[in-house]
Amino acid sequence: MSARTITARPLDATAFAPFGDIIDIRPQPDKIINQGKCARYHDLAGLDFTKGGKAGISLFDAEARSFPYRLELMERHPLGSQAFLPLHEQPFLVIVAEDNNGKPGQTQAFITPPSVGINYHRNIWHGVLTPLSAPGLFAVVDRIGGGKNLEEFWFEEEIIIEKDR
Amino acid sequence: MSARTITARPLDATAFAPFGDIIDIRPQPDKIINQGKCARYHDLAGLDFTKGGKAGISLFDAEARSFPYRLELMERHPLGSQAFLPLHEQPFLVIVAEDNNGKPGQTQAFITPPSVGINYHRNIWHGVLTPLSAPGLFAVVDRIGGGKNLEEFWFEEEIIIEKDR
Repeated sequence: MSARTITARPLDATAFAPFGDIIDIRPQPDKIINQGKCARYHDLAGLDFTKGGKAGISLFDAEARSFPYRLELMERHPLGSQAFLPLHEQPFLVIVAEDNNGKPGQTQAFITPPSVGINYHRNIWHGVLTPLSAPGLFAVVDRIGGGKNLEEFWFEEEIIIEKDR
Repeated sequence: MSARTITARPLDATAFAPFGDIIDIRPQPDKIINQGKCARYHDLAGLDFTKGGKAGISLFDAEARSFPYRLELMERHPLGSQAFLPLHEQPFLVIVAEDNNGKPGQTQAFITPPSVGINYHRNIWHGVLTPLSAPGLFAVVDRIGGGKNLEEFWFEEEIIIEKDR
Protein backbone atom coordinates (compact mmCIF):
# COMPACT_ATOMS: atom_id res chain seq x y z
CA MET A 1 0.00 0.00 0.00
CA SER A 2 1.51 3.33 -1.06
CA ALA A 3 0.05 5.64 1.55
CA ARG A 4 0.15 9.37 1.06
CA THR A 5 2.07 11.26 3.72
CA ILE A 6 1.52 14.81 4.96
CA THR A 7 3.29 16.75 7.65
CA ALA A 8 1.53 18.36 10.63
CA ARG A 9 2.77 21.89 11.16
CA PRO A 10 2.09 24.52 13.84
CA LEU A 11 -1.39 25.98 13.59
CA ASP A 12 -1.25 28.79 11.02
CA ALA A 13 -3.93 31.46 11.04
CA THR A 14 -3.85 32.18 7.32
CA ALA A 15 -3.85 28.54 6.28
CA PHE A 16 -6.62 27.63 8.73
CA ALA A 17 -8.89 30.60 7.97
CA PRO A 18 -10.87 28.94 5.14
CA PHE A 19 -11.83 26.08 7.47
CA GLY A 20 -12.70 27.77 10.74
CA ASP A 21 -11.73 30.02 13.61
CA ILE A 22 -8.76 29.91 15.95
CA ILE A 23 -9.98 30.65 19.49
CA ASP A 24 -7.00 32.41 20.99
CA ILE A 25 -6.19 35.71 22.64
CA ARG A 26 -5.27 38.59 20.34
CA PRO A 27 -2.69 41.35 20.79
CA GLN A 28 -5.33 43.59 22.37
CA PRO A 29 -8.46 42.60 24.31
CA ASP A 30 -11.81 43.98 23.20
CA LYS A 31 -12.67 45.07 26.71
CA ILE A 32 -11.21 45.19 30.21
CA ILE A 33 -13.74 44.12 32.85
CA ASN A 34 -13.95 43.29 36.56
CA GLN A 35 -12.10 46.32 37.96
CA GLY A 36 -9.23 45.93 35.54
CA LYS A 37 -8.54 42.33 36.49
CA CYS A 38 -9.94 40.55 33.42
CA ALA A 39 -9.44 40.94 29.67
CA ARG A 40 -12.32 39.96 27.38
CA TYR A 41 -11.59 38.80 23.82
CA HIS A 42 -15.05 38.98 22.36
CA ASP A 43 -16.99 36.62 20.10
CA LEU A 44 -14.12 34.70 18.53
CA ALA A 45 -15.99 31.97 16.67
CA GLY A 46 -18.52 31.97 13.86
CA LEU A 47 -21.23 29.79 15.43
CA ASP A 48 -23.65 28.67 12.72
CA PHE A 49 -26.54 26.31 13.44
CA THR A 50 -29.22 25.62 10.85
CA LYS A 51 -32.61 23.85 10.60
CA GLY A 52 -33.83 24.59 14.09
CA GLY A 53 -30.69 23.52 15.92
CA LYS A 54 -29.15 25.56 18.70
CA ALA A 55 -25.83 25.86 20.50
CA GLY A 56 -25.02 23.45 23.30
CA ILE A 57 -22.00 22.56 25.42
CA SER A 58 -20.92 18.92 25.56
CA LEU A 59 -17.75 17.19 26.71
CA PHE A 60 -15.67 14.86 24.53
CA ASP A 61 -13.17 12.55 26.21
CA ALA A 62 -10.90 11.09 23.54
CA GLU A 63 -8.05 8.62 23.46
CA ALA A 64 -4.62 10.15 22.85
CA ARG A 65 -3.00 9.38 19.48
CA SER A 66 0.64 9.51 18.41
CA PHE A 67 2.68 10.15 15.29
CA PRO A 68 2.71 8.82 12.67
CA TYR A 69 -1.09 9.11 12.73
CA ARG A 70 -3.02 7.08 10.18
CA LEU A 71 -5.97 9.07 8.89
CA GLU A 72 -8.64 6.69 7.64
CA LEU A 73 -11.76 8.79 8.13
CA MET A 74 -12.89 12.37 7.80
CA GLU A 75 -16.28 13.80 8.67
CA ARG A 76 -18.33 16.94 8.28
CA HIS A 77 -21.44 18.41 9.87
CA PRO A 78 -23.80 19.92 7.29
CA LEU A 79 -26.09 21.50 9.89
CA GLY A 80 -23.65 23.22 12.21
CA SER A 81 -20.26 24.52 13.25
CA GLN A 82 -18.29 22.63 15.91
CA ALA A 83 -15.83 24.18 18.38
CA PHE A 84 -13.25 22.27 20.44
CA LEU A 85 -11.96 23.87 23.63
CA PRO A 86 -9.21 21.94 25.45
CA LEU A 87 -9.76 21.70 29.24
CA HIS A 88 -5.99 21.39 29.65
CA GLU A 89 -2.79 22.85 28.23
CA GLN A 90 -1.88 20.05 25.83
CA PRO A 91 -1.62 20.59 22.06
CA PHE A 92 -3.88 18.55 19.79
CA LEU A 93 -3.89 17.58 16.15
CA VAL A 94 -6.26 19.39 13.77
CA ILE A 95 -6.88 17.94 10.32
CA VAL A 96 -8.95 19.67 7.65
CA ALA A 97 -9.60 19.22 3.95
CA GLU A 98 -11.06 21.19 1.10
CA ASP A 99 -14.18 19.71 -0.45
CA ASN A 100 -13.69 18.07 -3.81
CA ASN A 101 -17.07 17.12 -5.32
CA GLY A 102 -18.45 15.83 -2.03
CA LYS A 103 -15.24 14.14 -0.86
CA PRO A 104 -12.27 15.42 1.13
CA GLY A 105 -9.73 16.97 -1.26
CA GLN A 106 -6.41 18.55 -0.36
CA THR A 107 -5.76 17.77 3.31
CA GLN A 108 -3.77 19.75 5.87
CA ALA A 109 -2.73 18.96 9.44
CA PHE A 110 -1.88 21.39 12.23
CA ILE A 111 -0.73 21.14 15.83
CA THR A 112 -2.36 23.66 18.19
CA PRO A 113 -0.50 25.77 20.75
CA PRO A 114 -1.38 25.17 24.43
CA SER A 115 -4.77 26.49 25.64
CA VAL A 116 -5.99 27.35 22.14
CA GLY A 117 -9.31 26.15 20.74
CA ILE A 118 -10.63 25.87 17.22
CA ASN A 119 -14.07 26.09 15.61
CA TYR A 120 -14.76 24.19 12.42
CA HIS A 121 -17.18 26.02 10.21
CA ARG A 122 -20.34 24.25 9.11
CA ASN A 123 -19.79 21.50 6.53
CA ILE A 124 -15.97 21.60 6.63
CA TRP A 125 -14.24 18.23 6.28
CA HIS A 126 -12.19 17.47 9.39
CA GLY A 127 -10.56 14.60 11.22
CA VAL A 128 -12.02 13.22 14.43
CA LEU A 129 -10.80 14.64 17.73
CA THR A 130 -7.14 13.67 18.09
CA PRO A 131 -5.43 14.68 21.32
CA LEU A 132 -1.70 13.95 21.29
CA SER A 133 -1.44 13.17 25.00
CA ALA A 134 -3.72 12.56 27.97
CA PRO A 135 -5.99 14.06 29.17
CA GLY A 136 -8.10 14.10 26.01
CA LEU A 137 -10.91 16.12 27.56
CA PHE A 138 -12.50 18.93 25.53
CA ALA A 139 -15.57 21.13 25.82
CA VAL A 140 -17.41 21.10 22.51
CA VAL A 141 -19.83 23.78 21.35
CA ASP A 142 -21.89 22.31 18.58
CA ARG A 143 -25.42 21.91 17.29
CA ILE A 144 -28.06 20.39 19.53
CA GLY A 145 -31.09 19.29 17.53
CA GLY A 146 -32.53 16.67 15.23
CA GLY A 147 -31.69 15.92 11.61
CA LYS A 148 -28.77 14.25 9.87
CA ASN A 149 -25.73 16.26 10.94
CA LEU A 150 -22.95 13.76 10.26
CA GLU A 151 -21.38 12.77 6.97
CA GLU A 152 -18.39 10.43 7.02
CA PHE A 153 -15.82 9.65 4.34
CA TRP A 154 -13.54 6.63 4.60
CA PHE A 155 -10.37 6.79 2.52
CA GLU A 156 -9.58 3.83 0.30
CA GLU A 157 -5.96 4.55 1.04
CA GLU A 158 -5.11 6.00 4.44
CA ILE A 159 -3.13 9.22 4.80
CA ILE A 160 -0.07 9.10 7.06
CA ILE A 161 0.41 12.25 9.13
CA GLU A 162 3.89 12.89 10.44
CA LYS A 163 5.14 15.52 12.78
CA ASP A 164 7.12 18.47 11.46
CA ARG A 165 10.77 18.16 12.45
CA MET B 1 -15.21 46.82 60.01
CA SER B 2 -16.82 43.53 60.99
CA ALA B 3 -16.68 41.66 57.73
CA ARG B 4 -18.72 38.54 57.20
CA THR B 5 -16.70 35.42 56.52
CA ILE B 6 -17.71 32.37 54.50
CA THR B 7 -15.80 29.23 53.67
CA ALA B 8 -15.19 28.00 50.13
CA ARG B 9 -15.85 24.28 49.86
CA PRO B 10 -15.44 21.73 47.07
CA LEU B 11 -17.98 22.19 44.29
CA ASP B 12 -21.12 20.33 45.35
CA ALA B 13 -23.66 19.31 42.72
CA THR B 14 -26.71 19.54 44.96
CA ALA B 15 -25.77 22.89 46.47
CA PHE B 16 -24.86 24.39 43.08
CA ALA B 17 -27.92 23.11 41.19
CA PRO B 18 -30.17 26.12 41.89
CA PHE B 19 -27.55 28.44 40.37
CA GLY B 20 -26.34 26.66 37.28
CA ASP B 21 -24.81 23.60 35.67
CA ILE B 22 -21.61 21.74 36.42
CA ILE B 23 -19.92 20.86 33.13
CA ASP B 24 -18.20 17.61 33.98
CA ILE B 25 -18.15 14.04 32.77
CA ARG B 26 -20.75 11.66 34.22
CA PRO B 27 -20.48 8.00 35.20
CA GLN B 28 -21.63 6.97 31.71
CA PRO B 29 -21.22 8.83 28.42
CA ASP B 30 -24.29 9.51 26.30
CA LYS B 31 -22.61 8.13 23.19
CA ILE B 32 -19.37 6.53 22.05
CA ILE B 33 -18.14 8.01 18.77
CA ASN B 34 -15.11 7.94 16.47
CA GLN B 35 -14.61 4.16 16.25
CA GLY B 36 -14.84 3.73 20.01
CA LYS B 37 -12.11 6.23 20.73
CA CYS B 38 -14.20 9.14 22.07
CA ALA B 39 -16.94 9.45 24.70
CA ARG B 40 -19.55 12.18 24.22
CA TYR B 41 -21.29 13.66 27.30
CA HIS B 42 -24.13 15.46 25.60
CA ASP B 43 -25.62 18.92 26.14
CA LEU B 44 -24.52 19.58 29.71
CA ALA B 45 -25.50 23.23 30.12
CA GLY B 46 -28.80 25.09 30.01
CA LEU B 47 -27.91 27.83 27.54
CA ASP B 48 -30.54 30.56 27.71
CA PHE B 49 -30.29 33.77 25.67
CA THR B 50 -33.19 36.22 25.47
CA LYS B 51 -34.15 39.35 23.55
CA GLY B 52 -32.50 38.49 20.25
CA GLY B 53 -29.13 37.51 21.70
CA LYS B 54 -27.31 34.39 20.61
CA ALA B 55 -24.52 32.15 21.87
CA GLY B 56 -20.92 33.15 21.27
CA ILE B 57 -17.49 31.99 22.38
CA SER B 58 -15.17 34.55 23.96
CA LEU B 59 -11.98 34.26 25.99
CA PHE B 60 -11.50 35.77 29.45
CA ASP B 61 -7.97 36.18 30.78
CA ALA B 62 -8.17 36.98 34.49
CA GLU B 63 -5.70 37.75 37.22
CA ALA B 64 -5.22 34.99 39.81
CA ARG B 65 -6.59 35.67 43.30
CA SER B 66 -5.69 34.12 46.63
CA PHE B 67 -7.33 33.33 49.96
CA PRO B 68 -8.63 35.10 51.95
CA TYR B 69 -10.54 36.60 49.00
CA ARG B 70 -12.39 39.85 49.66
CA LEU B 71 -15.70 39.83 47.82
CA GLU B 72 -16.81 43.40 47.18
CA LEU B 73 -18.92 42.96 44.07
CA MET B 74 -21.39 40.53 42.60
CA GLU B 75 -23.05 40.69 39.22
CA ARG B 76 -25.81 39.07 37.21
CA HIS B 77 -26.80 38.94 33.55
CA PRO B 78 -30.55 39.36 33.07
CA LEU B 79 -30.45 38.48 29.37
CA GLY B 80 -28.37 35.33 29.31
CA SER B 81 -26.59 32.40 30.87
CA GLN B 82 -22.78 32.43 31.10
CA ALA B 83 -20.50 29.39 31.00
CA PHE B 84 -16.85 29.29 32.07
CA LEU B 85 -14.61 26.58 30.64
CA PRO B 86 -11.03 26.50 31.99
CA LEU B 87 -8.39 26.08 29.26
CA HIS B 88 -6.12 24.47 31.86
CA GLU B 89 -6.33 22.06 34.79
CA GLN B 90 -6.35 24.57 37.64
CA PRO B 91 -9.29 24.88 40.06
CA PHE B 92 -11.09 28.21 40.29
CA LEU B 93 -13.33 29.90 42.80
CA VAL B 94 -17.07 30.04 42.12
CA ILE B 95 -19.25 32.39 44.17
CA VAL B 96 -23.04 32.51 43.91
CA ALA B 97 -25.88 34.06 45.86
CA GLU B 98 -29.62 33.74 46.13
CA ASP B 99 -31.56 36.82 45.13
CA ASN B 100 -33.06 38.79 47.99
CA ASN B 101 -35.33 41.52 46.66
CA GLY B 102 -32.98 42.52 43.87
CA LYS B 103 -29.76 42.16 45.90
CA PRO B 104 -27.47 39.20 46.56
CA GLY B 105 -28.73 37.27 49.58
CA GLN B 106 -27.21 34.16 51.08
CA THR B 107 -23.81 33.64 49.45
CA GLN B 108 -21.90 30.42 48.85
CA ALA B 109 -18.39 29.76 47.56
CA PHE B 110 -17.06 26.66 45.86
CA ILE B 111 -13.73 25.45 44.51
CA THR B 112 -13.93 23.54 41.22
CA PRO B 113 -12.14 20.27 40.51
CA PRO B 114 -9.56 20.32 37.68
CA SER B 115 -10.92 20.51 34.11
CA VAL B 116 -14.48 21.18 35.20
CA GLY B 117 -16.55 24.09 33.90
CA ILE B 118 -19.67 25.76 35.20
CA ASN B 119 -22.61 27.55 33.59
CA TYR B 120 -24.40 30.27 35.55
CA HIS B 121 -28.07 30.37 34.71
CA ARG B 122 -29.56 33.63 33.48
CA ASN B 123 -29.93 36.31 36.15
CA ILE B 124 -28.07 34.40 38.90
CA TRP B 125 -25.90 36.55 41.19
CA HIS B 126 -22.26 35.49 40.93
CA GLY B 127 -18.78 36.74 41.67
CA VAL B 128 -16.47 37.84 38.88
CA LEU B 129 -14.10 35.29 37.37
CA THR B 130 -11.61 34.30 40.09
CA PRO B 131 -8.88 31.88 39.11
CA LEU B 132 -6.75 30.75 42.05
CA SER B 133 -3.52 30.42 40.08
CA ALA B 134 -2.15 31.31 36.68
CA PRO B 135 -3.05 30.82 33.89
CA GLY B 136 -6.41 32.53 34.29
CA LEU B 137 -7.57 31.76 30.77
CA PHE B 138 -11.16 30.59 30.20
CA ALA B 139 -13.44 30.10 27.23
CA VAL B 140 -16.76 31.77 27.97
CA VAL B 141 -20.03 30.89 26.26
CA ASP B 142 -22.40 33.77 26.83
CA ARG B 143 -24.85 36.06 25.11
CA ILE B 144 -23.74 38.08 22.10
CA GLY B 145 -26.16 40.91 21.38
CA GLY B 146 -27.31 44.37 22.37
CA GLY B 147 -29.23 45.46 25.45
CA LYS B 148 -28.35 45.90 29.10
CA ASN B 149 -27.04 42.52 30.20
CA LEU B 150 -25.03 43.51 33.28
CA GLU B 151 -26.27 44.38 36.74
CA GLU B 152 -23.70 44.95 39.48
CA PHE B 153 -24.07 45.02 43.23
CA TRP B 154 -21.38 46.46 45.48
CA PHE B 155 -21.47 45.33 49.12
CA GLU B 156 -21.35 48.02 51.79
CA GLU B 157 -19.41 45.53 53.83
CA GLU B 158 -17.16 43.10 51.99
CA ILE B 159 -17.44 39.33 52.47
CA ILE B 160 -14.25 37.46 53.33
CA ILE B 161 -13.96 34.08 51.64
CA GLU B 162 -11.62 31.59 53.24
CA LYS B 163 -10.52 28.21 52.08
CA ASP B 164 -11.93 25.09 53.69
CA ARG B 165 -9.31 23.38 55.85
